[in-house]
Amino acid sequence: MSKSSEEEHPQKALGWAARDSSGTLSPFHFSRRENGDDDVTVKIFYCGVCHSDLHTVRNDWGFTRYPVVPGHEIVGVATKVGNNVTKFKASDRVGVGVMVGSCKTCECCQQDLENYCPRVIFTYNSHNPDGTINYGGYSDMIVVDQRYVVRFPDNLPMDAGAPLLCAGITVYSPMKYYGMTDAGKHLGVAGLGGLGHVAVKIAKAFGLKVTVISSSPSKESEAINRLGADSFLVSSDPSKMKSAIGTMDYIIDTVSAVHPLLPLLTLLKVNGKLVTVGLPNKSLELPIFPLVLGRKLIGGSDAGGMKETQEMLDFCAKHNISADIELIRMDNINTAMERLAKSDVRYRFVIDVANSLSQ
Amino acid sequence: MSKSSEEEHPQKALGWAARDSSGTLSPFHFSRRENGDDDVTVKIFYCGVCHSDLHTVRNDWGFTRYPVVPGHEIVGVATKVGNNVTKFKASDRVGVGVMVGSCKTCECCQQDLENYCPRVIFTYNSHNPDGTINYGGYSDMIVVDQRYVVRFPDNLPMDAGAPLLCAGITVYSPMKYYGMTDAGKHLGVAGLGGLGHVAVKIAKAFGLKVTVISSSPSKESEAINRLGADSFLVSSDPSKMKSAIGTMDYIIDTVSAVHPLLPLLTLLKVNGKLVTVGLPNKSLELPIFPLVLGRKLIGGSDAGGMKETQEMLDFCAKHNISADIELIRMDNINTAMERLAKSDVRYRFVIDVANSLSQ
Repeated sequence: MSKSSEEEHPQKALGWAARDSSGTLSPFHFSRRENGDDDVTVKIFYCGVCHSDLHTVRNDWGFTRYPVVPGHEIVGVATKVGNNVTKFKASDRVGVGVMVGSCKTCECCQQDLENYCPRVIFTYNSHNPDGTINYGGYSDMIVVDQRYVVRFPDNLPMDAGAPLLCAGITVYSPMKYYGMTDAGKHLGVAGLGGLGHVAVKIAKAFGLKVTVISSSPSKESEAINRLGADSFLVSSDPSKMKSAIGTMDYIIDTVSAVHPLLPLLTLLKVNGKLVTVGLPNKSLELPIFPLVLGRKLIGGSDAGGMKETQEMLDFCAKHNISADIELIRMDNINTAMERLAKSDVRYRFVIDVANSLSQ
Repeated sequence: MSKSSEEEHPQKALGWAARDSSGTLSPFHFSRRENGDDDVTVKIFYCGVCHSDLHTVRNDWGFTRYPVVPGHEIVGVATKVGNNVTKFKASDRVGVGVMVGSCKTCECCQQDLENYCPRVIFTYNSHNPDGTINYGGYSDMIVVDQRYVVRFPDNLPMDAGAPLLCAGITVYSPMKYYGMTDAGKHLGVAGLGGLGHVAVKIAKAFGLKVTVISSSPSKESEAINRLGADSFLVSSDPSKMKSAIGTMDYIIDTVSAVHPLLPLLTLLKVNGKLVTVGLPNKSLELPIFPLVLGRKLIGGSDAGGMKETQEMLDFCAKHNISADIELIRMDNINTAMERLAKSDVRYRFVIDVANSLSQ
């Protein structure tokens, strides 16, 4: 019989886990592997609460393995480094994002696209190479191969910077890959949540003109005055949407619920690009005429490789970009999840792990 | 009251037109404008029968104006040129494709993308600047602004070269725009009809590895032995489709019927590109997971600009590429349309206009 989560590895760990699709989280004793030659052990200070965490604890995508400890926006301090570790030393500020392993040899890994490696090991709900299930950042410590650890810049706040490890790279990477960074071009950001609000900040740092497209009229003032967007479109206002037809070069679509693409495609100019980073659990309807007649494209993108994650953090540090967060205690996570499900957060919950994790 | 089609312009013309959504074509007397200073008058020798012609005569897209004279794969000889015409002289071999006008001043026109100009005038079923409806190439002659006329290379056969004016540019342009021309890369061609069979030939000339993806097992031998494809996938064979998962860099999707995109997306590698050039009359289902998790894109493309159309013709001339055609007489067009509707043609009907047009 296989060992229990608490005994399968030598290092004791404490986290909060969901046990079933109710998604309710509660204290969970488990264990981490010994720090190997290539590993960095990280004392976790802060962990962002990503919408994927919510999808996973509730098994929305159908592949959750319980118990599950979510969390992949991790910031902390290195406490141990292995003999082969050259990039980090104990006491360094470090970050861990959506993945903690990959094959290192495939075409994707060789091109610094570990996130698309067919054997990528995500930070939680994935199999470790030894067959055990791994656990994420809603916990006191984590052991990660140095390749999947990033330097966390000194001038970034550890709490508000944590969401960059997933939300930040998820919007930064497609902007680079799909060529959406030319200063002066017009970017639409669909959905103003954890991802969208970081997209606005990063896009402004690239010098883009930014329009937020949102179903919530109440977000207009903060989008413009606090986040720096140039304009705001209420997606349910037909006359405003009509007046914006054909005005945008790119759109980054962060909406993770099922939604119509036609209104967004219509906002694009000829050669416009719509990049989707949300993961609705059903197919969307794809209208072909605007795609063909306007030579438009719809692309997907999923987080980013480790090299680019470091680049993104350094970019955010240089431009003083971090997330707008609401800091919570670990024992408030269930309330936070309920509020997140209703989009009731401006714009990311971050757990103050080091100061509040308890049984 | 406005003048009749026969009297609205000074030059008499004879074509075949459909009068209603039965799509049945019959002789039609109409007129063409006088040859202006920027115009080339073309005696039409050959005209290809495009699937769009069929959609239009049957009003599949809902915007047909009857009577309609279809035809936008036109090859002939210039018989008159206006005072400002520098590119052509009488007796030159020339081609006319899917458009005969545009605004010439917008961003698209300035970038040689007249095909995406918001005021583009398609070759038939469009409004002329004077408000009259224009008529296409199933007719004895046409008058076209020199900007929308191309040189037809000497070594291209006029009959088998005619389909390049639409089918050729429609597959060539996206291959260039979306970066699908790297020698050695693997291209899937979905659908082996008028567009697909030209795509195979052009892709081979670029040095690509080409796999045809078709629902017709009977086309395997000709795809490989006659057209030069490297391999053939029957889309309804689950085991063959499974063995090809993740093997293709690009797919050009020429299928104009409603069809599932998931099997095609699955064939693509990470960063794979699926470009659709067909125009199904309903939306398709867009699965988001493969798009996001494999950073894949779906793009559209519609024909190409005039500069690129000339480039494509010259490319085809250099590589001895023309269409595989079945030459028909004008009075066989209705039978041909019926056969086209059943995909019963290898691979393009071309009308021998000059030798068979009669009342």
